[in-house]
Amino acid sequence: MRLILVAGTTRTATIDGISAAGADPEAMVHTPSADAEIATYGEPIRAPVVPVSPSGCPTPAVVTRAVRELVGFEVTVVDGGLAEPTGAPTVTVGASPGGDIREQDPVSTAPGVFAAARQFGRAIPDDQVLVAETIPGGTTTALGVLRALGEDGAVSSSLPENPLGLKSEVVAEGLDASSLDPGGAAGEPKVALRRMGDPVLATVAGFVVGCVETDTAVTLAGGTQLLAAAALVRHTGVETRLSAATTSFLAADESASARELADSLGVDLTVTDPGFDGLDHPAFSRFVAGEAKEGVGMGGALALAADAAVPMTDVRDRLRGVYDRLFEGDHPGGSERPGSEETSEP
Amino acid sequence: MRLILVAGTTRTATIDGISAAGADPEAMVHTPSADAEIATYGEPIRAPVVPVSPSGCPTPAVVTRAVRELVGFEVTVVDGGLAEPTGAPTVTVGASPGGDIREQDPVSTAPGVFAAARQFGRAIPDDQVLVAETIPGGTTTALGVLRALGEDGAVSSSLPENPLGLKSEVVAEGLDASSLDPGGAAGEPKVALRRMGDPVLATVAGFVVGCVETDTAVTLAGGTQLLAAAALVRHTGVETRLSAATTSFLAADESASARELADSLGVDLTVTDPGFDGLDHPAFSRFVAGEAKEGVGMGGALALAADAAVPMTDVRDRLRGVYDRLFEGDHPGGSERPGSEETSEP
Repeated sequence: MRLILVAGTTRTATIDGISAAGADPEAMVHTPSADAEIATYGEPIRAPVVPVSPSGCPTPAVVTRAVRELVGFEVTVVDGGLAEPTGAPTVTVGASPGGDIREQDPVSTAPGVFAAARQFGRAIPDDQVLVAETIPGGTTTALGVLRALGEDGAVSSSLPENPLGLKSEVVAEGLDASSLDPGGAAGEPKVALRRMGDPVLATVAGFVVGCVETDTAVTLAGGTQLLAAAALVRHTGVETRLSAATTSFLAADESASARELADSLGVDLTVTDPGFDGLDHPAFSRFVAGEAKEGVGMGGALALAADAAVPMTDVRDRLRGVYDRLFEGDHPGGSERPGSEETSEP
Repeated sequence: MRLILVAGTTRTATIDGISAAGADPEAMVHTPSADAEIATYGEPIRAPVVPVSPSGCPTPAVVTRAVRELVGFEVTVVDGGLAEPTGAPTVTVGASPGGDIREQDPVSTAPGVFAAARQFGRAIPDDQVLVAETIPGGTTTALGVLRALGEDGAVSSSLPENPLGLKSEVVAEGLDASSLDPGGAAGEPKVALRRMGDPVLATVAGFVVGCVETDTAVTLAGGTQLLAAAALVRHTGVETRLSAATTSFLAADESASARELADSLGVDLTVTDPGFDGLDHPAFSRFVAGEAKEGVGMGGALALAADAAVPMTDVRDRLRGVYDRLFEGDHPGGSERPGSEETSEP
């Protein structure tokens, strides 16, 4: 089994209040590079941060890594527009960092990236793959893509309180800057990606189309961002059933509509609960409080663990170990445990 | 266990008669990109060739891949100066393709590459790694480095008849162009790399130094190229014992002096015989005839199989499977079986 992790950036993430995928804006730009390293090596090796939310929720990469250490799947990282170096090996599809979707042409490379990722999806010899994302601000660009395609549905958030009003404003501004009405890019996924998307969505959508064309079974490992990718795939004319796997935290987000969106797109959605409720360790409690929810393939990894009959208690034990290594270890991002006295938010 | 595969190029390989790491010069430039894909995915996915020698010996990558499918080690590819695209994920250390060592400054990036690879070696969290190479023409640059450092010893060859006379001429011309006497770069490994080496050697040597500095046990998985890397490491002042693992084909090459070179450099050399003798299948017979001998971590992979008590008969069975998939499969490099009527040399 192989997890394809598409890691990239969009300047949309720098809009104040949009994303919790980093301790602060300076740290956030390193999040995808660090997530790629955590998935590959178990810890950051070149990125100078261990990604956490402002209140100390660890990156979902720790969960994906914990499952990987138990189940043993391969990870292949695709550079979907990284803005900072990573020590993880990456596949190149010609992506560069995405611009703010309030600009007129934020992802000018989207058509080329989609085409290269489709070729990659066609060429990969695996029978089945999972595809996942790490991109701060990615739910806002996902909403932008859904609106440009004319698809209903709300997106989730890495924040406990989903700033959907702000996201809708940003998307409205973006549609305006791109001279698009809602639904104006229906049937034109590359237009939606270029004007309202991000380079990670362009990579994921192209990759999935390539997999479908060559009968590689693909599981969309994530939440509403991956469902936006499914919408893009649908708007290329693909009609086969698609599968997605997400977390119970994402599915429980009532501000979003993951189940409805999945249903409307013909996507079979698997939801896995890692059983973090009532546990006091910071590796669990911030997720239970509604932060992060999903990302870096967390839901897909949990589904793999369930499929392999790995007890969730083993996943949680391993997760504690990964967490402690990350927040107490001697590596570039090593630091005090988030939520400790020195770093906690007032 | 992780195999670090450093893949790159040197224009030294284009000198007529220097290398058999490709069916012809046009194909040869794709060999490292294809080897990286075979190690990662089990077949080429973007590179347009399955690397073979002019007479049909398959790339040693097929052996490494076969062992990987049995033993399950991770592969991390480092771009050590690739000249053609690869679909394999690669770590970036700033390498670009190396020039012909008969030029004055063929590897101007060597100092920066060495430094970046050293950082990578310092950062990698594994307790033990293997490091391997794929670079056509690499034994000639290895000889160049040994002479520049003032180390005795001959290098091996991917050809059954080692063109040592030609290699010595090329090296003499290179030393002349670089205004270096033999031994003129003793104690200055970066000078030796820049003037007489290649970007893969710069990456390997820097990486190994970084590993040694952080107590990561490193096995040099290869032949005389990896021993040249060991010489470079020695000339940085590293005095700890080093380990190498190579094939019986390489060790049996009487034109080279792998055992003597290893002894003189304080390198413990493990030699593994995969038991190809007397077998009629082209996956085996060209190796027995003295072609290829080593590369892409073949000797290191065989040592891993032996350590894991995997019988060599299992390795050979799996190798047949990988070979058949590669030469009969539907992928970019898929083609008729080398040595078959259509493609055999007269």
